[in-house]
Amino acid sequence: MANFGFSRLTVVAPYEPHWREARSAVGAEELLQNAKRAESLADAVTDCTLVVGTGTLDRRRPEQAAVALPDLAPRIAGQLARGGRIALVFGPEKRGLTRDDLALCHLLVEIPTHPRQPSMNLGQAVAVCLYELAARAPCSSPAESVGQSPNHAADDAAPAASGDLELLAEIVAETMQAANYSPAAMQKANRRDLDLLLRRLALTHRDAQRILGLFRRILWRLRH
Amino acid sequence: MANFGFSRLTVVAPYEPHWREARSAVGAEELLQNAKRAESLADAVTDCTLVVGTGTLDRRRPEQAAVALPDLAPRIAGQLARGGRIALVFGPEKRGLTRDDLALCHLLVEIPTHPRQPSMNLGQAVAVCLYELAARAPCSSPAESVGQSPNHAADDAAPAASGDLELLAEIVAETMQAANYSPAAMQKANRRDLDLLLRRLALTHRDAQRILGLFRRILWRLRH
Repeated sequence: MANFGFSRLTVVAPYEPHWREARSAVGAEELLQNAKRAESLADAVTDCTLVVGTGTLDRRRPEQAAVALPDLAPRIAGQLARGGRIALVFGPEKRGLTRDDLALCHLLVEIPTHPRQPSMNLGQAVAVCLYELAARAPCSSPAESVGQSPNHAADDAAPAASGDLELLAEIVAETMQAANYSPAAMQKANRRDLDLLLRRLALTHRDAQRILGLFRRILWRLRH
Repeated sequence: MANFGFSRLTVVAPYEPHWREARSAVGAEELLQNAKRAESLADAVTDCTLVVGTGTLDRRRPEQAAVALPDLAPRIAGQLARGGRIALVFGPEKRGLTRDDLALCHLLVEIPTHPRQPSMNLGQAVAVCLYELAARAPCSSPAESVGQSPNHAADDAAPAASGDLELLAEIVAETMQAANYSPAAMQKANRRDLDLLLRRLALTHRDAQRILGLFRRILWRLRH
């Protein structure tokens, strides 16, 4: 990360002793000292307007748009220009991101690896992705945009942040339950589909606020 | 290397116990099993027509052409199209390539890293370089060209291999000595300059043969 000028690292649910040890090590980089921990991926990306999941797609058919890494920079240029905040999500080395993790991603990026050896070392995968972004999406350097949180309140046309979508998904899921929409056994799968749908819609912050208002009203009516 | 479809690894003067251990490890990759060892960098690249050194150029002014990694693929496309054989040379992690190593390179490539953290982990540097070549210079995949040794004898317009240049440098250096061209203390520096010059000239195999013939004649005359 430091090699390519990135500075904001959030680690999701780290194993506590390793996390403590890594951060307190003699000579631990500034980057690691400033790293945040989050209890869930949803918490980690709550203020991000574009969440990009990484991995090899050899075994599964992705449920959202996927691009090859060499095509990522033009794809995110618009978000960067509008002051969006982008998260790049890496899974644990052994098994990658889960389906539930992937449902929180707007977009998947795949490193084009050789079919005979598709699975990469985590540190090398991170290096390759950040090299590509630093070389071909130069606005992503922290000095220019990632370090600043976009001011959603001031700009309704700004893309919805993951936290907005999370709130919305919560209230839609509650509404589904209140309306007896589907059996309890289906709730987890429905929520995943809902997460995917909300990310596919490319809502603005204002859209999200409006839909949220509507569902709050519906939910109130259902319960009273 | 395996992630990006590269298969030909030569290790220069490895520390013997580590080398033996790595190759005999349970589950050692095919790539490592097939890796070669060489006593010197000159031996390792003897059949290569383009030798590309890697590193960060922050502390020294390079003595030959240098390109940024994102610009490497178009730069080597001509060599690949003509069936040239390209070596990418990485130095030891702690100190990188020496000046003598660099004198055997036709071209230097620099990974554009952040000024605050320019020095990369070796495995990550290799991953980033090979990702770039696999994604943007697809002819470099071993199935297509790197696996084949160009037939120099049949094609005089083919670029000179490093072995040709090595031979030529040897005889020019001998000629310099025979002619009392410069004091002994200068021989090492002269040889480095000669190595650099020969790589800058972009000689064909035929050029190298002709110049070699000329210097053989000169040397014979000087000695008789």
